[in-house]
Amino acid sequence: MRTGTNLPAIGGYNQAVVLDAVRRSPEGLSRTEIAENTGLSAQTVGNVTRRLLDERLVDETGTVSVGRGKPRTILQLRGQGGFAVGVHIDPAVITYVVLDLRGSVIAHSRTRTPSAQEPAAVIRLMAHAIRSLVDDSGVDPGLVIGVGIASPGPIDAEAGTVLDPPMLDGWQSVPLRAALSEATGLPVLLEKDVTAAAVAELWFARGPSRSDFAFVYYGTGFGIGLVVGREVIRGATSNAGDAGHITVDPDGPECVCGRRGCVGDLITPRSLVREAAAAGVVSPVPGASAHPPDMTAVGNALHELAASAGAEDEAAVRILRSAAHRLARALVVIANLLDVDEFVFGGPFWDDIGDALLAALPWAVESSPARVSRRSLSFETSRIGEDVAAVGAACLVLDHAFSPRPSAMLISV
Amino acid sequence: MRTGTNLPAIGGYNQAVVLDAVRRSPEGLSRTEIAENTGLSAQTVGNVTRRLLDERLVDETGTVSVGRGKPRTILQLRGQGGFAVGVHIDPAVITYVVLDLRGSVIAHSRTRTPSAQEPAAVIRLMAHAIRSLVDDSGVDPGLVIGVGIASPGPIDAEAGTVLDPPMLDGWQSVPLRAALSEATGLPVLLEKDVTAAAVAELWFARGPSRSDFAFVYYGTGFGIGLVVGREVIRGATSNAGDAGHITVDPDGPECVCGRRGCVGDLITPRSLVREAAAAGVVSPVPGASAHPPDMTAVGNALHELAASAGAEDEAAVRILRSAAHRLARALVVIANLLDVDEFVFGGPFWDDIGDALLAALPWAVESSPARVSRRSLSFETSRIGEDVAAVGAACLVLDHAFSPRPSAMLISV
Repeated sequence: MRTGTNLPAIGGYNQAVVLDAVRRSPEGLSRTEIAENTGLSAQTVGNVTRRLLDERLVDETGTVSVGRGKPRTILQLRGQGGFAVGVHIDPAVITYVVLDLRGSVIAHSRTRTPSAQEPAAVIRLMAHAIRSLVDDSGVDPGLVIGVGIASPGPIDAEAGTVLDPPMLDGWQSVPLRAALSEATGLPVLLEKDVTAAAVAELWFARGPSRSDFAFVYYGTGFGIGLVVGREVIRGATSNAGDAGHITVDPDGPECVCGRRGCVGDLITPRSLVREAAAAGVVSPVPGASAHPPDMTAVGNALHELAASAGAEDEAAVRILRSAAHRLARALVVIANLLDVDEFVFGGPFWDDIGDALLAALPWAVESSPARVSRRSLSFETSRIGEDVAAVGAACLVLDHAFSPRPSAMLISV
Repeated sequence: MRTGTNLPAIGGYNQAVVLDAVRRSPEGLSRTEIAENTGLSAQTVGNVTRRLLDERLVDETGTVSVGRGKPRTILQLRGQGGFAVGVHIDPAVITYVVLDLRGSVIAHSRTRTPSAQEPAAVIRLMAHAIRSLVDDSGVDPGLVIGVGIASPGPIDAEAGTVLDPPMLDGWQSVPLRAALSEATGLPVLLEKDVTAAAVAELWFARGPSRSDFAFVYYGTGFGIGLVVGREVIRGATSNAGDAGHITVDPDGPECVCGRRGCVGDLITPRSLVREAAAAGVVSPVPGASAHPPDMTAVGNALHELAASAGAEDEAAVRILRSAAHRLARALVVIANLLDVDEFVFGGPFWDDIGDALLAALPWAVESSPARVSRRSLSFETSRIGEDVAAVGAACLVLDHAFSPRPSAMLISV
């Protein structure tokens, strides 16, 4: 079943090269500049841009004078020339976004992830939500290029299958890419959540920064999206980014792996909420230990914990400070191994505790005697916000449609 | 002081493109195939190959008939057309190699790293050893393209400086690249040891494997060279690959970082030798705890430990099995984070204990409940042997001279 799983590139290699050059210049480019930037001949650029104007993918938006020559016409990407949908499945929430060709979010919506253990029902719901969002946004459905899904791992990227995410109960070898393609009639690509989030940060980064960074994903689970040398690290099977079993507290509780004090076990919302309940900071949350956990109840309690810390409740402050130190230990391991110099934080539950954690985290990482480098690092909450992984999934659809790079061609096989 | 720190590419972009295509085909290529593989016009290929023949960088080595057309002349890289020197500084040994253009090792030598705390003396010694090796190998010194150095980190790749490797006493901010360039009159590039080793494995890999792997470097220290998607991971400052502070035994001895049971502290030759002495497997090695350690004494004792394990001495077997399990825990963290599917092992002290460790390691990694993926992994001792990092450093010189990729252009700034 491969229906719709191939995202076609928009009109051949040269067209992709020109579109890519134009979309990387928000202020637009003249044909001369396009030829200079791409190495294509003036004649090829002329032919390709004529086609792009015909297809309404670019607009002539003005002229600029250079020296004494004829003023040059500026071409800009036509934002409304096409759209991409991004979907991010977290075990707690599903987020949907619609991006225009320029990467602007023009619509988004969010629903709780149904606790149904029936993936088929969830897929029908997702298809319906996508249709509604596209309709509500006023976008011509015929201009939607495709759908990108950001899913918890592990995934089988070649088959387009979600394998067995630890917190998505009942999801075992679900052919999500093919099923959602069939349900929506659109080409679909599948990416791991943390990788999609890193792609979004890379896409929206301006200037020379964001070249080597780790995206710290804080949702129902904890994961890392890695970018080194402006390239997203996917690994052999597109499942890179699992950092959960880094030991950060030898005296901590036992993890499912049999060791004590794994970071992915200690700092997730459920664990913090359980700690807070034990310390009397919040009321006990039975759903925190359920399987699957009741993430709505957990989210509410996490919010309460953060509020108590904000009001300087001593126990609440202590719990979040301890979480910051535990997370710091894992980030030192990652900084040492990959020589990243920025950490960007986000995900569905980050906003609740981010400020509290960032009050202690940078110092804990930078002063760690285990750090190899003495360079200072950057620690920042994602400016894209909670939608980050959904936005990244949609960016991948645009990347795929536009980018002449072979790596983009591999994404949806 | 930038003298000689720029390795010039051999003759422009098109020439680099053609040379790169030819060197990637050990059996040679016809001009038609070069044009097909590179996208250059037949005329450009004709001009460039004429120049390469004149400069004796390629040879016409035969003809091949395709269909009914005129037989095509095959071009092969002329191995003797140029040479690269590789130097690998481990705190215990310095290794030197000379590679021809095809990447074959035509000469190598090895010396103990002098315990002198005077880097200038070590650099003079290195320059002398390079000259001797080139002379002894019968290579025309005028055909030596440059020298690559593989050094323990941290390094300042831009400045070409070795910063303060924990086990190279007295080396603080040593401008190794400029100093060795001045002492030899050759262009020099500097790379971290583990990265150089990974480059060598990538260069000599055949077939589709070795696309996503970690090179486990076992020398005086322990480090990781990372390759993801056939690209070497250098990180923001070319210092990627420090995995020493991954906690692998919460009950282990205290590391310099203040935590217990860091892998880089537990499994180095010194620690194993200390353990072996405590268990009565080897005689006490006072030099193992000296600063800097007496690595010759440590190496001898490590050899003895491995021999005892080979003779099934129970305590010796237990020590190496425990080392395998500790290393396994770190490799699980790396496999989870980077989704590599191969581990390649090497470095100056690996040969002593490699077989014993590999008897227990694969099972310990693959059966770990902390592993996210269930795919089987590959575990292999480097086929390049002890010279691996020196060979990699020389490969980088060839890469730089040949490769049209911008990434190669960045290496020596």
